[in-house]
Amino acid sequence: HVLFFAVLGGPVAKGDETRNAILRTAIGVASVNGLDGLTIGGLAKEMGLSKSGLIAHFGTKEALQLAVLQAAAAMFGNRVIFPARRADPGVAQFRALFNNWIKWARSPELPGGCIFVAAIVDLDDKPGLCRYYLTKMQKEWLGAVEVAVTDAVKNGEFRENLDPAQVVFGFMSILQGFHLYERLFRERSADIRARAAFESLIIRARHPDSFPNADEGE
Amino acid sequence: HVLFFAVLGGPVAKGDETRNAILRTAIGVASVNGLDGLTIGGLAKEMGLSKSGLIAHFGTKEALQLAVLQAAAAMFGNRVIFPARRADPGVAQFRALFNNWIKWARSPELPGGCIFVAAIVDLDDKPGLCRYYLTKMQKEWLGAVEVAVTDAVKNGEFRENLDPAQVVFGFMSILQGFHLYERLFRERSADIRARAAFESLIIRARHPDSFPNADEGE
Repeated sequence: HVLFFAVLGGPVAKGDETRNAILRTAIGVASVNGLDGLTIGGLAKEMGLSKSGLIAHFGTKEALQLAVLQAAAAMFGNRVIFPARRADPGVAQFRALFNNWIKWARSPELPGGCIFVAAIVDLDDKPGLCRYYLTKMQKEWLGAVEVAVTDAVKNGEFRENLDPAQVVFGFMSILQGFHLYERLFRERSADIRARAAFESLIIRARHPDSFPNADEGE
Repeated sequence: HVLFFAVLGGPVAKGDETRNAILRTAIGVASVNGLDGLTIGGLAKEMGLSKSGLIAHFGTKEALQLAVLQAAAAMFGNRVIFPARRADPGVAQFRALFNNWIKWARSPELPGGCIFVAAIVDLDDKPGLCRYYLTKMQKEWLGAVEVAVTDAVKNGEFRENLDPAQVVFGFMSILQGFHLYERLFRERSADIRARAAFESLIIRARHPDSFPNADEGE
């Protein structure tokens, strides 16, 4: 998972410290206003810095947006993907990925929820470097989930004839559904709904004939 | 479903014709660029109209965005909700709602996919009239889905102890997941994945013990 390297951790030089502080603020702004709502001018105002100072750090708006996506991907790796590896391969890791994601989407640094949910909608019809990076990063995330599902099949926790990619689709859908209930409807039960759907996904993945594979769909 | 009145259908006066033409274009633009990407200036350029002409029709940017949401809600009612009522109450209507939604999200007037998926992310952290309207409209849409699920329970097609709201969460999640796979990943199999997940949702709703209700979740 090359995209999830920790760019925010570890000892850093002074210039990097400012840069990282800017990126942390920018991630919060993008979580609320979307990646489109992130401008050099707006961010400079938010941080009490000069516009020219920000331009010196990032150059263009697109470069700023890309840096934000990269920094957020590093956070995501550190909080969602890597800690899940401490769990046993298979269902335990699958569960850890789910739990870590819910925590991530509710973390105080992301006042508007998962920054990638917003970025996906902002970027899906805008070809360019940011879209390319986001797609790649999201595919790696899907890949990490698929590894956990495939391990569960190898372990015998999930049934043999399971299509792991279909389970990954179900998993990703639940995260998106959570975002809708949590952010638009402000439903307190969003996580309970999402968790029940997730448990149901696991039950289906265990039991034969309860989960049609994609190629068996109508 | 008061919000789904047909505002685009039927005979209209000349001023309304222009207004409707503007709204149809605006819906396409918002489908690609989001509701945030919809500006009076940008839309005037797109349609070869004067900015002042557009302001005469809609006033502020917020009023334009609200009119777009209302017009899109009317389209949504005409294409997704009302036609589904021709199917038998219960599972048949539930299936029709799903099929109509996929068609909707792929309709040529929506080159960027379902306009509401984009609007949800744009508006979820922006209090105001547009957010209020969108939330109300989305809750009505959820309500229409829940009626179909509840009818299926009454019919005996779905099991008695089912929590319809949990099935609605699963349904909404699949639509969001479809949008992710279709729009970001450009996966040809997005609809096949979504359909398999939907069939699985139905199977779980039929069989006892295969679908934990929200209050039984871990």
